[in-house]
Amino acid sequence: MATAAILSVGDELTLGQFLETHAQWLSQRLVELGVEPVMHTTVGDDEQGLVDALAAAMKRVDVIVITGGLGPTADDLTREALAALDGPGLVHDADAEGALRARFEARGRPLPASNLKQALRPAWMRMMPNPLGTAPGMFGTLDGVLVASLPGPPEEMHPMWHDHVAAVVRAHVGHVQIKCASVLACGLPESVAAERLGALMDHGRNPIVGITVSGTVLTARLRATGVACSDGSVEACIAQTEAAWGDLCFGRGDDTLAGSIGALLIERGASVATCESCTGGSVARALTAVPGSSAWFGSGWITYANEAKVRLGVDPMLIERHGAVSAEVAQAMATSAARGAGARFGVSTTGVAGPTGGSSEKPVGTVWIHAHDETRALRPRRFLITGDRTMIRDRATALAQVMLRLAILGRDAGPLLWEVR
Amino acid sequence: MATAAILSVGDELTLGQFLETHAQWLSQRLVELGVEPVMHTTVGDDEQGLVDALAAAMKRVDVIVITGGLGPTADDLTREALAALDGPGLVHDADAEGALRARFEARGRPLPASNLKQALRPAWMRMMPNPLGTAPGMFGTLDGVLVASLPGPPEEMHPMWHDHVAAVVRAHVGHVQIKCASVLACGLPESVAAERLGALMDHGRNPIVGITVSGTVLTARLRATGVACSDGSVEACIAQTEAAWGDLCFGRGDDTLAGSIGALLIERGASVATCESCTGGSVARALTAVPGSSAWFGSGWITYANEAKVRLGVDPMLIERHGAVSAEVAQAMATSAARGAGARFGVSTTGVAGPTGGSSEKPVGTVWIHAHDETRALRPRRFLITGDRTMIRDRATALAQVMLRLAILGRDAGPLLWEVR
Repeated sequence: MATAAILSVGDELTLGQFLETHAQWLSQRLVELGVEPVMHTTVGDDEQGLVDALAAAMKRVDVIVITGGLGPTADDLTREALAALDGPGLVHDADAEGALRARFEARGRPLPASNLKQALRPAWMRMMPNPLGTAPGMFGTLDGVLVASLPGPPEEMHPMWHDHVAAVVRAHVGHVQIKCASVLACGLPESVAAERLGALMDHGRNPIVGITVSGTVLTARLRATGVACSDGSVEACIAQTEAAWGDLCFGRGDDTLAGSIGALLIERGASVATCESCTGGSVARALTAVPGSSAWFGSGWITYANEAKVRLGVDPMLIERHGAVSAEVAQAMATSAARGAGARFGVSTTGVAGPTGGSSEKPVGTVWIHAHDETRALRPRRFLITGDRTMIRDRATALAQVMLRLAILGRDAGPLLWEVR
Repeated sequence: MATAAILSVGDELTLGQFLETHAQWLSQRLVELGVEPVMHTTVGDDEQGLVDALAAAMKRVDVIVITGGLGPTADDLTREALAALDGPGLVHDADAEGALRARFEARGRPLPASNLKQALRPAWMRMMPNPLGTAPGMFGTLDGVLVASLPGPPEEMHPMWHDHVAAVVRAHVGHVQIKCASVLACGLPESVAAERLGALMDHGRNPIVGITVSGTVLTARLRATGVACSDGSVEACIAQTEAAWGDLCFGRGDDTLAGSIGALLIERGASVATCESCTGGSVARALTAVPGSSAWFGSGWITYANEAKVRLGVDPMLIERHGAVSAEVAQAMATSAARGAGARFGVSTTGVAGPTGGSSEKPVGTVWIHAHDETRALRPRRFLITGDRTMIRDRATALAQVMLRLAILGRDAGPLLWEVR
């Protein structure tokens, strides 16, 4: 099995100012190609440190992927370090300069002198275009080792991996029979999710299944090698996982919870409106992150203040009698939003995100969520969510989507993560 | 300045199944002691890989901190690798075995044979007790380099750092005077921000200044050592940075753009309302992320559909004449939101987030933003934002906050990042 090293560059990483996350992402991508990442190294903005780390990795692996240090400033030294590995130094790349000039011209700005540096590359490497930023990527082979250098911003690095680097790596290491899949769920505690998978997670199985958690989303990662790639094992394992996780499974691979909601609404020719208090716009933001969401989302309200709730149609007596954080107000918010927007579905959140505002009866983390369907009566749910303000808001945002999805499906799914009955 | 390397051990890290976070935590702790972390390395459960990484670090730094690989299983190889660095191999530590036996006895269980391994240490190292787990830590000095080996679980590693390692490191490197600060800005391109700082960023200065970018936020990080900590240099350097970045500086340290807006609104006894199209709730979400934001934010609207804009008060003739993505509609949206909420300020976004919906006149990335102040006429601004749908939305969200902040301050600040005039 071919091996890889991942190198990340930046003082902000070595000094602990930012958390390094590219190595994990790239490791997952390399594993998908049948390449085994054996080391991650992070070095500061220091040319000699970078040269040493590169030289050490060159002795050990077949593929090196570097991120960062390709910016226009004096402390961006990846180009120089790569050039130092093989005599002739940096050469000017006319195409890259042309792309840079075009990029700035399109914005009606002259190319700053500092950016000219980004048109330089080591003589042994070739450029990879970066339509999303000023730093082109570079790749080349030296002493039999493939080296690829990518820009640090993830929104530039990820597309460059998919558009260029993956193919270059595959060409370098040869085809490996490997098949990966993932199944996604939300609203289930990790321990319950693992129990339900049972023996599917045993070591040494092929396909092997593992669970990872990111935010509130659970991912079952399946990896098959050899004959298990083509004998139906992967499909069977996906089906078993989906059966085990039931109604809370919302997709596979790159699917998102909001995307799955959009697809269901399109199928039904229906739309949804939001009315948010403690999540302050996060639910609408998640829904409208889906391309084409205007087909099923037209209006949302953030009713942070009680007057805003009343203005939308919530009976002020309900607020007075039950408090803004209550089943009754959650229900009235979702219903009012759906009516106001002329939508079949509505979803609302009202809770105590903290750090202050909690009481013994309604402690910080208490959130009421309601999903409204104009064709059926549904019940609001109460949650007691752990974490700080940001986590409580993010988790409530995910749970609101889970409840909306269940409402569209016409399912209940039993107790949800953090639900209190 | 003394330097350090941090080594993390585990296949689950190199394979990307878990995110490595110890290196960041340890780096922050080392910086606080005046030690500069210059490299982080993660290796798998492989003795030779670990020995190589240790040997490389020994040549480069004064302090090495290792986490992980101290468990009782066959793939825990940190002890063996450390012993291999200096001839005599592993020795048995009677005290450590006694502590292990006592730990298991207290739980009414016999000591498993596999755990006996955890009472072994390289001859050149000493044990550090671990009251919270079975793996004791170890430290020792070899060829003038201090090496400390800590267990992987953070709930064991963190207390061991505070109780033992910090003092050992301080004794090894001596007391260092150090002072850190940071200045934050948003709305300025990185290259312009760097140009404006000029010589402040020169290598070798004390305090030294570097720029990092996270999303659209620029951070100037200042670090002073020795006499520069107490002679006013840090304060002078902060003032110079703030002067260079001007009205687009919004804070220091852990400040946020939304937090700075909240503080300004509280000073003025004013509030703000939002009306979002392309950002779909993100601006409201950012504002309400601030604890206590209900003091200055009560209502927001997501007017994704034209009918939603009209319902809020936008003249349908404006939409017909200029299109939903226009200066006129942006202005009407912000004004209507402020009036609807009874707020002095309003902020709106309307644009083409893509991936489809662009035209030659209004390509994907075109966003109009308006900040309304009921006491003064302000101008909407047009942006052409690069990136995918997520980036366009996130960047527009930041720019809306920048414009709102300038409106509250009564400043213009000249051309902003991605602005088209």
